[in-house]
Amino acid sequence: MLLIADNLTVTNKAVQSGVAEKDPELIRELVRNCVAAGAQAIDINPGPLGRNPESTMTFLVDTVQAVTNLPVLIDTPNPRAIEAALRCCKHKAIINGFSLEPAKLEAVLPLAKEYNADIIGYLLRPDGHVPADAQERLQIAFSVYEALCTAGIDRERLIIDPIVVPVTWHNGNFQNREVLSVIRQLPDLLAFPVRTIAGLSNLTAAEGPRGKKLLIESAYVCMLAEAGLSMVLMNMLHKETVAAAKACRSLLHSSIFAWEEI
Amino acid sequence: MLLIADNLTVTNKAVQSGVAEKDPELIRELVRNCVAAGAQAIDINPGPLGRNPESTMTFLVDTVQAVTNLPVLIDTPNPRAIEAALRCCKHKAIINGFSLEPAKLEAVLPLAKEYNADIIGYLLRPDGHVPADAQERLQIAFSVYEALCTAGIDRERLIIDPIVVPVTWHNGNFQNREVLSVIRQLPDLLAFPVRTIAGLSNLTAAEGPRGKKLLIESAYVCMLAEAGLSMVLMNMLHKETVAAAKACRSLLHSSIFAWEEI
Repeated sequence: MLLIADNLTVTNKAVQSGVAEKDPELIRELVRNCVAAGAQAIDINPGPLGRNPESTMTFLVDTVQAVTNLPVLIDTPNPRAIEAALRCCKHKAIINGFSLEPAKLEAVLPLAKEYNADIIGYLLRPDGHVPADAQERLQIAFSVYEALCTAGIDRERLIIDPIVVPVTWHNGNFQNREVLSVIRQLPDLLAFPVRTIAGLSNLTAAEGPRGKKLLIESAYVCMLAEAGLSMVLMNMLHKETVAAAKACRSLLHSSIFAWEEI
Repeated sequence: MLLIADNLTVTNKAVQSGVAEKDPELIRELVRNCVAAGAQAIDINPGPLGRNPESTMTFLVDTVQAVTNLPVLIDTPNPRAIEAALRCCKHKAIINGFSLEPAKLEAVLPLAKEYNADIIGYLLRPDGHVPADAQERLQIAFSVYEALCTAGIDRERLIIDPIVVPVTWHNGNFQNREVLSVIRQLPDLLAFPVRTIAGLSNLTAAEGPRGKKLLIESAYVCMLAEAGLSMVLMNMLHKETVAAAKACRSLLHSSIFAWEEI
């Protein structure tokens, strides 16, 4: 399971002021800290983009690339910003992402094709709502897969996000168990070892005590790992959760266990 | 998932000296601490029993019962000690346990029948060795189930232990993933919601740094919980592992999530 930093988001103050003042230093520092914590890719979520989406996105990609060669996830629904990011990406780029929403299918999928990028497909209804259960997610996964193939994109480019929901939703626990089930079933459903990604921070997005949030994150990341998740998008500065995710690697790896690797 | 203390074992110094000097106070203190940490049953493992197995076992059961009404697990292969414990148990008793080893089948199963006790069946080969994989464990589970029925014991009395192995075994990770698979498959195989138990401390029984052991325990206990394990036998004084197990409950419970319950 690869660990991907979700720290570069507009809700982070360093990112906010860095973008506002076009000052890369605070953002670079954040990226360095994520890399030091073990991040294997960096998600870039610029939030709402103003009149010039290209320049903000290019600034952020360049800032990240000044610090690391790690892959970046281009986490914006704005097609102009996605294209600008793809153009300035020197290393691996992953578009995050598309759903069955017609506008996204039309605007985002062709970019993955043109720039030969990996792309995340969200298991969301065409209207943007979260599916009711695992069964509906699997149906949507098949449509997502078909849309990708129809757009002429190699299926190995696809990464599926089954959509983790906040624990505080009235059926949050049910939904998040269904997510685990979907991760287990997807390779059989699509008949190839499709990669999966999950947004761990969404789990504890609601108000709650920090210590308990870390416990919940840590417990669920272990369940995701055991279900076979390929990539987890997470706060890399949550030391406890990162430690749990790394312990899972040691436990699940087929090579001989070594205490040193944890 | 119920949390069961494995702290009352002969390797614990309080238990050792308490037994040697027939002094219950240190043992009582240990039990109180386990209960305070959230133990829902107490495993009593007296270790090798001398000439008078009955008196040691009775002393330990009485000592535990002086402090708590929680169920006790009678964790000895000695039939005389098991029977002595069953006789003095005022509350729920669980025999821990039997395997397909002929001597155990003959000596231990009739005690479960006679005293109407729950009993743990180990998924071990008749020669005491650990099975090769999930498939062999499931075959053994069926034989264990048949032996229980043949002895005239109600199937609801059965609790199956699929045998967690130390991570440091050359195929430890493989074996412990097979354990998760067995826990998931057992109810279908036996066609009833059979309960399961796992010995978490066995996972990190080998030499290793304490901090890393706690991480490994915590990660694996989350995987066990998600697989549907009914009871985990664990060191209740490992605060981090207990916290992880409790977080799993909050995540897996079908009722509405509440931060307060963690």
